[in-house]
Amino acid sequence: MRATILTSPGHIELQTLADPQLEQDTDAIVRVVASCICGSDLWPYRGLNGEQTEPRQIGHEFVGVVEQVGDAVSGLAPGDFVIAPFMYSDNTCALCRRGVHTSCVNGGGYSGCQCELVRVPQADGTLVTVPGSVSQELVPHLLTLSDVFPTGHHAAVSAGVREGSTVAVVGDGAVGLSAVLAATQLGAATVVAMSRHADRQALAREFGADAIVETRGKEGAAEVREIFDGIGADCVLECVGTDASMKQAFMATRPGGTVGYVGVPHGVSIDPRPIFGRNIGLAGGVAPVRNYLEDLLPAVLDGTIEPGKVFDLTLPLDQVAEGYRAMDERRATKVLLTP
Amino acid sequence: MRATILTSPGHIELQTLADPQLEQDTDAIVRVVASCICGSDLWPYRGLNGEQTEPRQIGHEFVGVVEQVGDAVSGLAPGDFVIAPFMYSDNTCALCRRGVHTSCVNGGGYSGCQCELVRVPQADGTLVTVPGSVSQELVPHLLTLSDVFPTGHHAAVSAGVREGSTVAVVGDGAVGLSAVLAATQLGAATVVAMSRHADRQALAREFGADAIVETRGKEGAAEVREIFDGIGADCVLECVGTDASMKQAFMATRPGGTVGYVGVPHGVSIDPRPIFGRNIGLAGGVAPVRNYLEDLLPAVLDGTIEPGKVFDLTLPLDQVAEGYRAMDERRATKVLLTP
Repeated sequence: MRATILTSPGHIELQTLADPQLEQDTDAIVRVVASCICGSDLWPYRGLNGEQTEPRQIGHEFVGVVEQVGDAVSGLAPGDFVIAPFMYSDNTCALCRRGVHTSCVNGGGYSGCQCELVRVPQADGTLVTVPGSVSQELVPHLLTLSDVFPTGHHAAVSAGVREGSTVAVVGDGAVGLSAVLAATQLGAATVVAMSRHADRQALAREFGADAIVETRGKEGAAEVREIFDGIGADCVLECVGTDASMKQAFMATRPGGTVGYVGVPHGVSIDPRPIFGRNIGLAGGVAPVRNYLEDLLPAVLDGTIEPGKVFDLTLPLDQVAEGYRAMDERRATKVLLTP
Repeated sequence: MRATILTSPGHIELQTLADPQLEQDTDAIVRVVASCICGSDLWPYRGLNGEQTEPRQIGHEFVGVVEQVGDAVSGLAPGDFVIAPFMYSDNTCALCRRGVHTSCVNGGGYSGCQCELVRVPQADGTLVTVPGSVSQELVPHLLTLSDVFPTGHHAAVSAGVREGSTVAVVGDGAVGLSAVLAATQLGAATVVAMSRHADRQALAREFGADAIVETRGKEGAAEVREIFDGIGADCVLECVGTDASMKQAFMATRPGGTVGYVGVPHGVSIDPRPIFGRNIGLAGGVAPVRNYLEDLLPAVLDGTIEPGKVFDLTLPLDQVAEGYRAMDERRATKVLLTP
């Protein structure tokens, strides 16, 4: 099969690898219908995740059709259209039962998915079948359920967004935009998106943002506080992961509020004193996507929400290197790849 | 009046000061019936809060009898027995209405209270009257409501302790012991107290602890995880405030759980990566005591709980210096002072 390889930072190649095979009787082999490039893929692409010692497959977000299942797989059959959460999990262990599928005692990550075939361990626990036939139009929206939309949703849930909440979102990437949509769906009274890009601002508005703040840092946080009665937002959704974005998030939160964070932290160090004095909480982390799928799928299937609008560039797999360049250079918000 | 002065780190003196006077028409003057020494008073006593430039009054926890009220005070009258939360607040601003009285826009701290008379600003919003006559036996229990017991309660509430929660408490000082009691009252299924002192272990058991872990750090956290199915506690209550205790708290928490922290952070730096990966939240801060008093007072008045058992030394005010020494040298858990 053809598979995307990060040979070294900045270098993406499509190579031919042996097709993956069933290894455990709980595995499934899934033929990828669509995958995408995650903001977190850009960290190793940019060489910011430490030294890379050898070429490796990349990618973790995909939807596809089951091709083959192991003998112990009972809930899936070849031909099923499935959503693959970006980490696999057994959905039965003590941590899955508590909704933290990303800490599943039998869980882990895929070898990569910006390719044609993926071996999915713990297939019964991991893959969620989409009922009925799946139209081409629905594919991008379903694809967001593998990571980006539930990740934005996790920021909102972690920050405690509920009916009537005041919300600010730090980060206007695909996750930040998804967080705007998720907060709106959870009943937020007012959502402020922090964004400096016209096209992203427009999508934030479409996803439910009531106001846009273009400034950043202390000044941006002060603008957010001003919008919310001078005290700040109940819930701030941090969707970047840098030290600056985290500080901005804390400064935009009202005393007693919560920062829900889903941007993988890079170079972040938190001095708890200012947040201790203002009783600002921090919650979130790697999104347990599997935990949210039953909740989120119906609204996608019936068209209530269209989270796939975060994709602004679709490329065939053999142009994956261009996809990385486009996201790296911010020419694209999020790139969808078709085999 | 006689008042406790921290002249320089390690030096406590009882000096005679002018009686405080009403300054605003929203003030009250309260005659102290009992005050106490807080673990947080030990930080400046030990010279660990930065350079002290001049002698100053100290103390922030007390109960007393209203002596005089300003013209705008309507809910209090001379003779009322009152509980004074350790910070004053108007109880009406946008942040008080959200339960964050410690961030009240008209709030602040007292000049000190290990003395005979205290000027309480925002008296109507701050002071809570105890109905009926107050027996001598009840005074220590009521006194804990000014800080230490609601602070332990805040750790538990912030960590999300509810019916059936698994809980570990880091710190066996008066706040940690109060947190054990609060967690039990909130319906925790199992409470583990981390303590190396026999007398504190005994009180932790009396307050509802089901198990004691004597080890600390990585080893102690591993013991806690072992007790809780190998995964850790749903809720860990951090009641110390050092970098080591905070790390211990995070390590004892299960993925998806929350650390509720109320120990004033000293020298703490949080690397979010390990807690991000395990979805461990952090919540808490300076306890908004006023917010909890209506909830907590009835159980004290009817004898359901006896939080005043944290006091193991009572001294007259003129022995306040000995009180500080006893707490500093860990000869006492918590010292009650009578004028």
